[in-house]
Amino acid sequence: MFEVIGERINTSRKLVQAAVVERDADYIIDDVKKQQEAGADFIDVNAGARIGHEKEDMQWLLKTIKPIATVSLCLDSPDPAILEMAYGMVDNPPMINSISLEKNRFDTMMPFLKGKDCKIIALCMDDAGMPASSDDIVARAKELVTRLESIGMKQDSIYIDPLVQPISTDSTKGTMVLNAVRQIKQLFPDVHITGGLSNISYGLPERKIINRTFVTLMMDAGMDSAIIDPLDSKIMAAIKTADLLLGNDNFCMSYLKGVRSGMIKS
Amino acid sequence: MFEVIGERINTSRKLVQAAVVERDADYIIDDVKKQQEAGADFIDVNAGARIGHEKEDMQWLLKTIKPIATVSLCLDSPDPAILEMAYGMVDNPPMINSISLEKNRFDTMMPFLKGKDCKIIALCMDDAGMPASSDDIVARAKELVTRLESIGMKQDSIYIDPLVQPISTDSTKGTMVLNAVRQIKQLFPDVHITGGLSNISYGLPERKIINRTFVTLMMDAGMDSAIIDPLDSKIMAAIKTADLLLGNDNFCMSYLKGVRSGMIKS
Repeated sequence: MFEVIGERINTSRKLVQAAVVERDADYIIDDVKKQQEAGADFIDVNAGARIGHEKEDMQWLLKTIKPIATVSLCLDSPDPAILEMAYGMVDNPPMINSISLEKNRFDTMMPFLKGKDCKIIALCMDDAGMPASSDDIVARAKELVTRLESIGMKQDSIYIDPLVQPISTDSTKGTMVLNAVRQIKQLFPDVHITGGLSNISYGLPERKIINRTFVTLMMDAGMDSAIIDPLDSKIMAAIKTADLLLGNDNFCMSYLKGVRSGMIKS
Repeated sequence: MFEVIGERINTSRKLVQAAVVERDADYIIDDVKKQQEAGADFIDVNAGARIGHEKEDMQWLLKTIKPIATVSLCLDSPDPAILEMAYGMVDNPPMINSISLEKNRFDTMMPFLKGKDCKIIALCMDDAGMPASSDDIVARAKELVTRLESIGMKQDSIYIDPLVQPISTDSTKGTMVLNAVRQIKQLFPDVHITGGLSNISYGLPERKIINRTFVTLMMDAGMDSAIIDPLDSKIMAAIKTADLLLGNDNFCMSYLKGVRSGMIKS
């Protein structure tokens, strides 16, 4: 079954930032509970938006969320020092968001990851920037998996993010990533594919229908996780329905549960 | 771009049957115009529901529709005599719905089709019934294409219907047909894939979300046509959005047109 990484606890969101500034624990707790009830399998926690306050904000968020978290946390920062601190604060093995092939990030993240009990999101980004072709995505994924395996990480703990790019700038950006995901899953069947989806619709109107149609196509290609808002019931319904159609929902149990709860609607 | 075969002119639909019984041409004309405006590329015409009246009903429907049809008609009957009569009444090359491998139907349809200028829907059905596996679908498609080519039909005129079956009875029925469609398109890149979709959701609640999620997946596998209700704006929006994401919509023209018309909504 598909794994949902709930994206809402991010200080780049206005109301979350306000709650963090005011140390309004109730707001954060309520939001996390709603995400868990809606089916989040991980809660992403990103405190990066207030420059100079990331460390204390992350600490406060983790202290606030830990007691009520029923799922694993996804510790989200570009700064390995913040990740090290955050890793020390959680009890259950977390997901770490993220490593990439950018030299500075890669070189500091690798020693951090060695021997840690965690899942890792690995972005197909390097110092040349975003990948330019399917082959490029696959080559970067290969390097990430190979290097992460070399420090003892299992394929099942690696979540490759192929980096979705806007279809408005180039009509091949959808098939580029779909083809790459198919190839990565053939090379590494146990590796997971994750990522944000909303970049695909950047610059276009009515973005949410594009995002949820795209997750359906990505699931067929092999994506088995995504960083989304679990309170968006339409994208959650698309995911449940795709899981049904792709043979991942025995006896339609999960689909029928979604219908009964009112999340899935025609 | 995906081709929509508008399914509404069918005497199994209560209001259509009433209009046919009363020879209410305005009702039929209005319905056909709406389907065309909504983006139908073909108008299916099926007069089979009133036993003993199919011939006169089909004649009346075609006389009524012909003057206002701006797209080709899809002549829909299991009876080759009705199809022969209908074929003689239309000016533009029609689509014929359908031939199958059932011996009686096959043996009467083949001489009818020889030398005709038309497109043909070919069902993966034989006297043993519905296909039981991907291999079964592919084997039947192969036989249909080979036999139809032997009487001079071009691959581009052949529309294979793999026969979608209910996921509620067997969770592999979705991947069975998706895998088969991928294989058929590899064997015969110029052959089209079409069919009804609603069987997939038989027996389940909130069927329309299943149908439109399935058409998205089928398009990725290679389906480029379907027999649907073009007035169902949500399935039309899913099709336009999938075409965009699969690289079939240069400069997002068709998607943006759908947003402007109000058909595509988040």
